[in-house]
Amino acid sequence: MEERTIQVNHCSTRKEKPKSDQLQFGRIFTDHMFVMDFTDPLGWHDARIVPYQPLTIDPSAMIFHYGQSVFEGLKAYLSPDGDAQLFRPEKNLQRLNQSNERLCIPQINEEFALGAIKKLVELEKDWIPGSEGTSLYIRPFIISTEPYLGVAPSRRYKFIVILSPVGAYYKEGINPVKIAVENKYVRAVSGGTGEAKTGGNYASSLKAQEMVAGSGYAQVLWLDGVERKYIEEVGSMNVFFKINGEVITPVLNGSILEGVTRNSVLQLLKHWEIPVTERKISMEELRQANKDGLLEEAFGTGTAAVISPIGQLTWNGQHIYINDGKTGEIAKRLYDTMTGIQYGMLEDPFNWIEKVKEKSNSVF
Amino acid sequence: MEERTIQVNHCSTRKEKPKSDQLQFGRIFTDHMFVMDFTDPLGWHDARIVPYQPLTIDPSAMIFHYGQSVFEGLKAYLSPDGDAQLFRPEKNLQRLNQSNERLCIPQINEEFALGAIKKLVELEKDWIPGSEGTSLYIRPFIISTEPYLGVAPSRRYKFIVILSPVGAYYKEGINPVKIAVENKYVRAVSGGTGEAKTGGNYASSLKAQEMVAGSGYAQVLWLDGVERKYIEEVGSMNVFFKINGEVITPVLNGSILEGVTRNSVLQLLKHWEIPVTERKISMEELRQANKDGLLEEAFGTGTAAVISPIGQLTWNGQHIYINDGKTGEIAKRLYDTMTGIQYGMLEDPFNWIEKVKEKSNSVF
Ligand SMILES: Cc1ncc(COP(=O)(O)O)c(C=O)c1O
Ligand SMILES: Cc1ncc(COP(=O)(O)O)c(C=O)c1O
Repeated sequence: MEERTIQVNHCSTRKEKPKSDQLQFGRIFTDHMFVMDFTDPLGWHDARIVPYQPLTIDPSAMIFHYGQSVFEGLKAYLSPDGDAQLFRPEKNLQRLNQSNERLCIPQINEEFALGAIKKLVELEKDWIPGSEGTSLYIRPFIISTEPYLGVAPSRRYKFIVILSPVGAYYKEGINPVKIAVENKYVRAVSGGTGEAKTGGNYASSLKAQEMVAGSGYAQVLWLDGVERKYIEEVGSMNVFFKINGEVITPVLNGSILEGVTRNSVLQLLKHWEIPVTERKISMEELRQANKDGLLEEAFGTGTAAVISPIGQLTWNGQHIYINDGKTGEIAKRLYDTMTGIQYGMLEDPFNWIEKVKEKSNSVF
Repeated sequence: MEERTIQVNHCSTRKEKPKSDQLQFGRIFTDHMFVMDFTDPLGWHDARIVPYQPLTIDPSAMIFHYGQSVFEGLKAYLSPDGDAQLFRPEKNLQRLNQSNERLCIPQINEEFALGAIKKLVELEKDWIPGSEGTSLYIRPFIISTEPYLGVAPSRRYKFIVILSPVGAYYKEGINPVKIAVENKYVRAVSGGTGEAKTGGNYASSLKAQEMVAGSGYAQVLWLDGVERKYIEEVGSMNVFFKINGEVITPVLNGSILEGVTRNSVLQLLKHWEIPVTERKISMEELRQANKDGLLEEAFGTGTAAVISPIGQLTWNGQHIYINDGKTGEIAKRLYDTMTGIQYGMLEDPFNWIEKVKEKSNSVF
């Protein structure tokens, strides 16, 4: 049973908003949040927008012990005409339900959740920062709250959405990063939870990140857990390589996350008639291509950075330098097009933009 | 900096205690809990025993998003002379720190934590149920509480210990179970977090458990994530097989948990001069041994059940029946010896028992 209305409980005082140029990622949250509860057999119910506040949860709640949780990440952008807009939010909600399926968490109604997100963003519209490259980060997540120490799917959950104004990812122009190829630790393996967006995948990634962070590497590049040969993805980005005119990205194999940005990049490249292939690609192939002078570009794709050019990959102590450490042509074109669409500066030929206002008022 | 004293804040009313014969696992908690905080740069501080109560945590706390957490599980037993006693608790605290290391969580002082557990158990001694096979389950756990959405080790944590009176695992005598060998899903892979006791490992295991639970299987037996051939462990137990007079258990390979019970069983078997080997063992080898009439026993080992005989293994639709579905001789002898030591009915030749009272009063 699902309640179709959302109660709104406004907060009495509003927090001060941070200055656009002082924004960091994920440290400041807006005045309100969306919450919905699941209990068995009632289902999802009691959808509400309430003042942003701490959660009160029993210490025996499953989330604290067995990590049964999923999350999503997307952004609201301010368009030139002052509208708040989302980028392909339905993809995030579909992925949330796919993650739910893997983690034995009950499905949510995607349409209803999208309405809830829009309603919350509309209420917090003043929190969307206005300057270039800034946005309002949207974090929907589900946690298991049954107070029970048995290893079994929880019979109680909370679905919560919180919002955080975030600064420009590139403060001084888009800038290639150094990435370390990870040989010791493994993020995910086929049959595991790699294709779901669940806490455990990120907890297990911390160690490798910590090991290389000191040496100036932005993130690690994960290899497959079976042969330790094939390229999977970067910490929170999918990866693309341009080799001899062809763009290649690792095929979805069950252990990497299907990024919304990855999917959009594939569509754009096909639209531009640039040859693009999803397939297995090994580090050895990459090393050889570089040696032969055929590795033309490398970049990551994800909601945070949109496109993040890779200027250097380090593997077993060998450095692979890409495109003289400069941003490649395709990376630049993709970045400009994607952000142009997201901020409403360019046409939206694929209908990727979802305005926050249009429908939200009519649904409730 | 670590505070060496533990403040105690007693609750005003005590809850009613459940009847010994109505106890379940992990659903009822005692009157008090132990809490200690970590902040950077202060370290672990503010160690306290407080009334059992909900936690108040920001919705952006890392535990809700990136699963950075670890836990342990051990038990307090009542001896015939009315003393509360623990079984090798220092092993659990060592393992907690090993899990901390893998999950980038700061180390705890094991001796201090053991003192805290003893103090809490002593305070809640009336909660240790008295009838046969019952005990007080002790759940230490650490959660990351920094309110920050970045994927990085948290700079704030809570270490908490809660207690739950639990009933006898075997209400009608020790009883062999049916186990399904899992081919599709993988619990852990070398390079991952399998040897740590962290939430994500359990979250990822739910799906496979759910799939077989309906068909009468108690748990799944996990195979290695690389070749899908070698036996790893069961849901919350390590496994042992007796083949042609020799006891075999999978060697610690980085992806299975080193059980305290497993370690104790190895010691007992060696003490008894029963041949025992830690090595890789494949499902195919097991199937062949069974076919040749050489598979004499199979059992799981873990804190909850101590020893759990396996009467049937199902792999790719083939059923392997073991010892006519009866409890094997070695399983029985191990169970009787281990529980005899745990409940103070048998001598303790290995110094496994730690009395709760002796030292706890002098330390604080
Ligand atoms: C592991 C992982 N891979 C890839 C991505 C990129 O996905 P998206 O483009 O949907 O942000 C993310 C970020 O969400 C991620 O966490
Ligand atoms: C995955 C896993 N393996 C094995 C065990 C057995 O360990 P122990 O004997 O320390 O209880 C447990 C339970 O703690 C477990 O969770």
